[in-house]
Amino acid sequence: MKIAGTAYRTLWPLPSGAVCVIDQSRLPFEFVTLELASLEDAAHAIRTMVVRGAPLIGATAAYGLALALRAEASDERIAAAAEALRATRPTAVNLAWALARVRRVIEPLPVPQRAAAAFAEAGRICEEDVAQCRAIGEHGAKLIRERSAEVRRRVNVLTHCNAGWLACVDWGTALAPIYVAHDAGIELHVWVDETRPRNQGASLTAFELGAHGVPHTVIVDNLGGHLMQHGEVDLVIVGSDRTTATGDVCNKVGTYLKALAARDNGVPFYAALPVSTIDWSLEDGRAIEIEARDAAEVTHLTGRTAAGTLERVRVVPEGSPALNLAFDVTPGRLVTGLITERGVCAASRAGLAQLYPERAA
Amino acid sequence: MKIAGTAYRTLWPLPSGAVCVIDQSRLPFEFVTLELASLEDAAHAIRTMVVRGAPLIGATAAYGLALALRAEASDERIAAAAEALRATRPTAVNLAWALARVRRVIEPLPVPQRAAAAFAEAGRICEEDVAQCRAIGEHGAKLIRERSAEVRRRVNVLTHCNAGWLACVDWGTALAPIYVAHDAGIELHVWVDETRPRNQGASLTAFELGAHGVPHTVIVDNLGGHLMQHGEVDLVIVGSDRTTATGDVCNKVGTYLKALAARDNGVPFYAALPVSTIDWSLEDGRAIEIEARDAAEVTHLTGRTAAGTLERVRVVPEGSPALNLAFDVTPGRLVTGLITERGVCAASRAGLAQLYPERAA
Repeated sequence: MKIAGTAYRTLWPLPSGAVCVIDQSRLPFEFVTLELASLEDAAHAIRTMVVRGAPLIGATAAYGLALALRAEASDERIAAAAEALRATRPTAVNLAWALARVRRVIEPLPVPQRAAAAFAEAGRICEEDVAQCRAIGEHGAKLIRERSAEVRRRVNVLTHCNAGWLACVDWGTALAPIYVAHDAGIELHVWVDETRPRNQGASLTAFELGAHGVPHTVIVDNLGGHLMQHGEVDLVIVGSDRTTATGDVCNKVGTYLKALAARDNGVPFYAALPVSTIDWSLEDGRAIEIEARDAAEVTHLTGRTAAGTLERVRVVPEGSPALNLAFDVTPGRLVTGLITERGVCAASRAGLAQLYPERAA
Repeated sequence: MKIAGTAYRTLWPLPSGAVCVIDQSRLPFEFVTLELASLEDAAHAIRTMVVRGAPLIGATAAYGLALALRAEASDERIAAAAEALRATRPTAVNLAWALARVRRVIEPLPVPQRAAAAFAEAGRICEEDVAQCRAIGEHGAKLIRERSAEVRRRVNVLTHCNAGWLACVDWGTALAPIYVAHDAGIELHVWVDETRPRNQGASLTAFELGAHGVPHTVIVDNLGGHLMQHGEVDLVIVGSDRTTATGDVCNKVGTYLKALAARDNGVPFYAALPVSTIDWSLEDGRAIEIEARDAAEVTHLTGRTAAGTLERVRVVPEGSPALNLAFDVTPGRLVTGLITERGVCAASRAGLAQLYPERAA
């Protein structure tokens, strides 16, 4: 997507053999790119959240492994590099998946061919992610176009958290339909939930949309219900961190509240996700274990002072405990449909079976 | 209520004739009291939100008028002082109500008696507020006691925003049942919604509860739905800024989302309010005009730095607009009951008619 008119991806290979990434830890206030020239650079970028978002972490890890093999590509080096990368964010599924995929390709090869093959496979991982997100965008944009024809004015889409191109290589998941529709000239406006406690909406989604030129307004997470009561939301599109075989959608905490409000007001509510997000082994979203994160994410906030420096401030009294659970589960009954790279389906076992007949056994 | 073991009200008269208040603009990080010795002091305290909360603003204005009359109590002085106080927060209904009430008492009196009569009337306004809040607390505490007997463990109450004693003279509305139940030895714990954008939950409610010794945990506004899905909320009690004759509850934005989640999970949802909050002229909450406030309340936040200073930081990118609507309306169909100074009733015309037969004509 674009930043001030220039097309970007979240990472791209350089002629030198290094890889360039956007330093997302400094967004939305500073736009800085960083060169990753070694395994250590890549591991550091993942660990410090210079790059974040499951697909992007996977892509960065794949390149990190390739970078590690430039000097030496023995079996021992591969194993040690993969372990160093895996340890950066132990819970990210895509990280382990991307490393295993690259290893599967390179380990049968003669040592001198391994580094180049690893770079090629990392590139394929990126291209596949872009193609998958782009397909989600095309399918979802049809829904936005239909709503646009129904409401006959600017379409208002509400989204929660950041499931945008900054979390992927390009396009994003929930935001891909918005970019495709916007680029196709459909007049739209996005309500951006700030998404406490980490504020990925207020910082990353607002930055993305603003940089690409998509009209948007930041709102507190509390406001979406009122807007839906008053006809100010035509469509909700969110991402998903994990979706059950029955269509229950695990996503950033607060998603469930928006789905309830959408149902109460007849607003269509969609989750956009690639097939890799679907957990075919899970029947019931209530079984998903919810990550408890540091309470300091609730009690403290970082922002920019009038003087231009970044400052971390406490917003909860000393002595008051806080609880920080990162996700919630929206039951499939509240989800109008799932938008995947294969199309749009009902959020149910039957719906998913139509798009993925090979899994419907 | 208590602060570190000492009983406080939000304002109290001093032997000198001045009035003491807690400087709420410095909470939760500093506890400082201020003496108001003149009309100007009182007007400044209201304008700068040293005191806030509709009942407390009314009480402070009543004392402000009394302070103005200590030097001179002519008709002209009364009119000018009332106008100066009224202009501090033009939308606060209780402010105009309290000023009119004091004027009605003092204007028929000879000039030399007016100042003392104004102080006496301001005192009565405070005592009535305390008695009304205390009655709400007694009625609401019965509901907490019943839930406690049902769940047979610590009762978890969720509240939104600050409808506590800091907004009133003592006890509060939504928090009064919690204080009464806690003081009666019922084991309870409060989930405190931080309540973006102004964070009255994270700052004032958490401070109040902590200072009085009530166990509580601060959560982001996004988390309540998940907690209700998992049986972690036994009861929701919120305040109300305005309630229709049919039981629709206008309260701080985000309340509606919690009511939806309570309904979806079978959790009782109550609004606590004095009769003065009921707008008998309104049939439909959707007709209530919602206050749009400064977008800077969404884009900026104030907190305490590690160095101990208060700092205001921006959390939304420059160029991203924000919308800040302060309230929403929860339809009566989602409200289990209203807790008023007269008891608990259904959130409906019939329910209110039982408690207020004199208004049921």
